[in-house]
Amino acid sequence: MVTIDDVAELAGLSKSTVSRVINHYPHVSQEKKERVYQAMETLGYVPNSSARSLRNKKTKMIAVIVPRLMNPFFGQLVESMEVAANQQGYQLLICQTMYSQDTELGHLNLLKTKQVDGIILASLENEWNNIAEYLSYGPLIMCNEFDESAEIPIIKLDQIHGGYIATKHLIRQGHTRIAYCSGGHKSMVANHRKIGFEKALAEHGLRFDESLGFFDAYTIENGIEVFKEIHKMDNPPTAVFTGSDEVAAGILTGAREYGVDIPGELSVIGFDNQVISRIMDPKISTVEQPIEQMAQKAVHVLVEQINSNNKPAKERYELPLELIIRESTVGGPLRAVE
Amino acid sequence: MVTIDDVAELAGLSKSTVSRVINHYPHVSQEKKERVYQAMETLGYVPNSSARSLRNKKTKMIAVIVPRLMNPFFGQLVESMEVAANQQGYQLLICQTMYSQDTELGHLNLLKTKQVDGIILASLENEWNNIAEYLSYGPLIMCNEFDESAEIPIIKLDQIHGGYIATKHLIRQGHTRIAYCSGGHKSMVANHRKIGFEKALAEHGLRFDESLGFFDAYTIENGIEVFKEIHKMDNPPTAVFTGSDEVAAGILTGAREYGVDIPGELSVIGFDNQVISRIMDPKISTVEQPIEQMAQKAVHVLVEQINSNNKPAKERYELPLELIIRESTVGGPLRAVE
Repeated sequence: MVTIDDVAELAGLSKSTVSRVINHYPHVSQEKKERVYQAMETLGYVPNSSARSLRNKKTKMIAVIVPRLMNPFFGQLVESMEVAANQQGYQLLICQTMYSQDTELGHLNLLKTKQVDGIILASLENEWNNIAEYLSYGPLIMCNEFDESAEIPIIKLDQIHGGYIATKHLIRQGHTRIAYCSGGHKSMVANHRKIGFEKALAEHGLRFDESLGFFDAYTIENGIEVFKEIHKMDNPPTAVFTGSDEVAAGILTGAREYGVDIPGELSVIGFDNQVISRIMDPKISTVEQPIEQMAQKAVHVLVEQINSNNKPAKERYELPLELIIRESTVGGPLRAVE
Repeated sequence: MVTIDDVAELAGLSKSTVSRVINHYPHVSQEKKERVYQAMETLGYVPNSSARSLRNKKTKMIAVIVPRLMNPFFGQLVESMEVAANQQGYQLLICQTMYSQDTELGHLNLLKTKQVDGIILASLENEWNNIAEYLSYGPLIMCNEFDESAEIPIIKLDQIHGGYIATKHLIRQGHTRIAYCSGGHKSMVANHRKIGFEKALAEHGLRFDESLGFFDAYTIENGIEVFKEIHKMDNPPTAVFTGSDEVAAGILTGAREYGVDIPGELSVIGFDNQVISRIMDPKISTVEQPIEQMAQKAVHVLVEQINSNNKPAKERYELPLELIIRESTVGGPLRAVE
């Protein structure tokens, strides 16, 4: 087999000069180019353009890694990202982890195999230490889920404030015994919401009763189960912070089956302002998350990283959340304390 | 440049035999292989591995094209396909058309540029004539949406039966004036459902009143609008076939706002058996679609096509639908006619 060494020898040039000619780098004289092309022709040398394209070619494809598409929050995030990516000339590869660490690392391999130009992490099943090494293959950014120690751009929502305003609203309605639901112990999104939740409690001299915590609540079905557990309690809460419109809708569904009045006997606040929060009876008070705005920003920042070839900046973008008061928390027998 | 013709000449073999050796096809004698390898070495011929990989190399990536991910039917379909693809060692690229013909053709180009090994069409914005040419670049199959004239595998649900059983149920509850909603005129899924709808009407000597047709109803918001239009009618229908749990949920939401009793004053039947149909009050009667089963079958058939390299078979797979009776159609003032 003819190799690049043979071409270099016949042309009387260094191997790196031959490589620069083959890869069309600038600053090679026309005379040297001619000598390389001549030697290639004489020897019948064809550069391995497959390997070359692996090193240099952009795929114009980016990937986003999410836990599950059927969670409407991620469905909406991904739909908005796909539209934003297309507008910038990129295809979006959508990957689910289904909450598995191995699956997440498998998706990150897309960067190693050069099948995508960059990846948006909207899930974080692994420690940052185990993810950081993939940075040598291409840009990564975090969106929604995050790890502050990561030396890459993070686009997130102000979850501490989200937890705070939702809880403050419940306290203002007179509640002092408030249950807390979230999806997963590990998530920093959930973690920050809980900081906001406890901050609001502390401001009113209240403390979280750990027996009112539900830490694996993601779906409508989970919400129905949460309701059943609350319903069995000797000293039940009068309000629930759910962290999810789906879970809130499940609690409402359970309450209807057991004839428990919402918000009369139990107030429920959702999170996300999904369509479901507007069509349940009663309509669900919730926290609006600017999902589309976050999705656009994430795609924009990733594409910038892809084009710049610079060391990733430790940029931080935080978008605000907003309380939306509807029927599931207002009009109960309890009264405002402020 | 040394070409494959030079190798064939020196080896005293046909060009196609040389090509078969280079590409490791079976049924070439060891003796001929040796002659080809010897000639390649003598001439310093290196097969253009880039072109070869373009022709032969698998990306282990497949794409699915859907109209919109936020439609929970497609969200669920895609989630199930992603799991099935991963199990078979494939990554799934998810593409939305947002109902645009141009965007659909843009996604089909992924096959031309060899970025995916095959494509599942779960949308069909373009005529088959305009899609068929992409078959020369790799396998295509249709899933859910379809065009019977296409010479490729189709995995679909028995939508005629679905439309029929839903309508039959409404007629058995005593309804003779039934509104009809569907998403888009062009869709064969919608078309077949309407055939089933009219078949059930015809069996009872009824005919569809065109003034009761709503042909662009996809979302909850659309359902609310449908309700408002029905509510304004001088001679309103007593039942609605919606073709979508989302649209049905919207009609229920509209009815609640206007104080109209469901099913007392208006019966509503959904389609899909989405979670939303079980949590609305009243719970929505609907038609169960075996989405997961269809998704698995589609991935399986496409991967078979990718591995076989055969001319695509005109296979047809049809999965059954099932009526699920809940509260939104039963218990109204009307009585059964059979």
